[in-house]
Amino acid sequence: MHNGEAIVAACHELAAISSDTGQLTRCYLTPEHARANALLAEWMVEAGMTTWQDAAGNQWGRFEGRDPALPALVLGSHSDSVINAGHFDGPLGVLLAIAVVARLNASCERPARSVEVVAFADEEGTRFGTALLGSRAVAGTWDPAWWDIIGRDGLTLRQAFFDFGLDPARIGEAARTPESIAGYLEAHIEQGPVLEAERRSLGVVTAIAGARRFQISIGGEAGHAGTTPLELRRDALAGAAEAIVAIETLARAAGIVATVGSLETYPGAVNVIPGEVRMSLDIRAERDEDRDRTLEAIQESCGRIGESRGLAWRWHETHAAPAVACAPRLIESLSEAIGTDDGPVRHLTSGAGHDGMAMAHVCDIGMLFVRCYKGISHHPDESVQARDVSDALEAMTSAVTRLAG
Amino acid sequence: MHNGEAIVAACHELAAISSDTGQLTRCYLTPEHARANALLAEWMVEAGMTTWQDAAGNQWGRFEGRDPALPALVLGSHSDSVINAGHFDGPLGVLLAIAVVARLNASCERPARSVEVVAFADEEGTRFGTALLGSRAVAGTWDPAWWDIIGRDGLTLRQAFFDFGLDPARIGEAARTPESIAGYLEAHIEQGPVLEAERRSLGVVTAIAGARRFQISIGGEAGHAGTTPLELRRDALAGAAEAIVAIETLARAAGIVATVGSLETYPGAVNVIPGEVRMSLDIRAERDEDRDRTLEAIQESCGRIGESRGLAWRWHETHAAPAVACAPRLIESLSEAIGTDDGPVRHLTSGAGHDGMAMAHVCDIGMLFVRCYKGISHHPDESVQARDVSDALEAMTSAVTRLAG
Repeated sequence: MHNGEAIVAACHELAAISSDTGQLTRCYLTPEHARANALLAEWMVEAGMTTWQDAAGNQWGRFEGRDPALPALVLGSHSDSVINAGHFDGPLGVLLAIAVVARLNASCERPARSVEVVAFADEEGTRFGTALLGSRAVAGTWDPAWWDIIGRDGLTLRQAFFDFGLDPARIGEAARTPESIAGYLEAHIEQGPVLEAERRSLGVVTAIAGARRFQISIGGEAGHAGTTPLELRRDALAGAAEAIVAIETLARAAGIVATVGSLETYPGAVNVIPGEVRMSLDIRAERDEDRDRTLEAIQESCGRIGESRGLAWRWHETHAAPAVACAPRLIESLSEAIGTDDGPVRHLTSGAGHDGMAMAHVCDIGMLFVRCYKGISHHPDESVQARDVSDALEAMTSAVTRLAG
Repeated sequence: MHNGEAIVAACHELAAISSDTGQLTRCYLTPEHARANALLAEWMVEAGMTTWQDAAGNQWGRFEGRDPALPALVLGSHSDSVINAGHFDGPLGVLLAIAVVARLNASCERPARSVEVVAFADEEGTRFGTALLGSRAVAGTWDPAWWDIIGRDGLTLRQAFFDFGLDPARIGEAARTPESIAGYLEAHIEQGPVLEAERRSLGVVTAIAGARRFQISIGGEAGHAGTTPLELRRDALAGAAEAIVAIETLARAAGIVATVGSLETYPGAVNVIPGEVRMSLDIRAERDEDRDRTLEAIQESCGRIGESRGLAWRWHETHAAPAVACAPRLIESLSEAIGTDDGPVRHLTSGAGHDGMAMAHVCDIGMLFVRCYKGISHHPDESVQARDVSDALEAMTSAVTRLAG
């Protein structure tokens, strides 16, 4: 795995380990998880690492530094996938990490710090509906309530642990102390269109956005589409439309993202004025304050729309996560490593969640984004250019060399 | 049936003839249709009429004038219902017509013209999905293609005719010539909230609006709700929302009605930007030119929205009916009959369809609207005040007396 082409080829090879034929699906605590760990461990050994699987099923490798007592620099990403996944969301970061260590191993000088590579075994939450199980075990934020979660196949997480050969009672052993880790660096496909639009191969993440999600119900009054004049209507969809326009305008002004992804009308007939609308709202920002301030403006705006149209709004919050900032020193290291021949390095917020959100509980985190085709992710069309992966390998190696000393 | 209270009571009595227990459902060519015709005929005879059922199953009654050769004035409405219907949509007009004849019969002077009452047997189209079958047979606009329509119960219209004791080959005998009818007058609940909002018991219809209906598809690009900045999105729902606001604004400016009643987002997930929206549009106006001009403005507006947002619009017309004007002389007669103590009589467009649309092919039509509770219709909560029905009886009787001479 000496260059981008080899890393991309390894991603495809790993993708062959799937529970579905003809498409990639690899879930936590399945036979495919075990087979993927075994292949990754093989590659880790080839790169000069000693390897182990931790108490949560995460696959680790360690490249010993000159001073084994120093906190280690951890590189990694995740090895699990969504259903019918692409080949790069997760594996690219793991394989880049292994390739970085292979480079260190091939060089004459061994770094002062040890460098570890981790392949987190559950980031997507595909099997149990709860994401980041692998990195939360490592961060020591495992919730005992999770043991009773029933997965897609009807088994509890507890039973799945036993079946995989793991002991739930020993989950605590997967946790790492802050003293043992000098920082966590992850490379990942952008899963968005920004780098491609700006013709850049790489970007440095400044923060992982915190999302809040709502289910919104708008109550109006159904009526005959022919016989009710516009001024006597309480049309829930007309109000929702005004709100969606306001949401877009306010989010744009604040430089954040807000999305109404689903919307349903009731009764939903061509000749009946919608008496009720149910719609979702997903709002994310680099800083929680920006997100919450915009949300407040959106809610005020909806309140005004409701008042003028005689519509009743109900907001039900279904999800809330705080934003997680990347460490300035790691942002700087990665930015320097990318170099500035083409002007300033692109800094961007990650709108999607990543293992770094969990790892931030025990150490500084830094993330490198790699351009991907059309921003497509969670889809077989997910694609990266080998040249961009080579750029990422150079940048990661350079940053790790400096950080590991 | 000498006053509003008696007419309302008769509506409730007729509503007991239903194929569903506990709610009113009465469809074309069913045993309930036959029973309703029998009861209506009984009431017609009591009011002094001779009665017959025509070749389409419509129930008629005739009150002979002094000059039987003169074209008759026809009063009526329909006797069929939607599923789980109210008691007044249709029957109120039939029973008011019978009550008007009862008044004429009780008075000393017989009018010059004969007055006929018709209870059209299919206006709603509940069983066969095609509306106005009863009045289209009378208007002579029956389409032979209808014979093969399969109804809700799996039988063709042809078979249903046989089962009811009617002969499809004789459908032409139901048709009336323009020479035999002096005009068609119908009283109907408003099915809208205008009269109630203006505290008026009655209104005179100037035209039955012609509706056009579309299924609109808006194609954008799905994407990750977290990772795609607003300026790089092609959000089909954001475009649809802007369009719905424009539709409302343009329809309001033109003084017509336009309704988006159903809207669906695809894929429709909280964290995915909608890549496609499918929505309906129903647009109606008193004059087809106004409707079509507004529709053109809406389509232009959608075109601009599509261009600026990179969205592809497809319009599929699913229904189109021309507006039908009421005859000025009948509008005038009804307006005079209502009287002008409270200022000018309220003239309004019917946004819903009525048998008059079919009857306009053979004669002048006129319609009287009766205030109904909250504009509710096609629902068991449909309700009228007996006092308003008494007002309608007075006005109809007065207009008919003048028109029949």
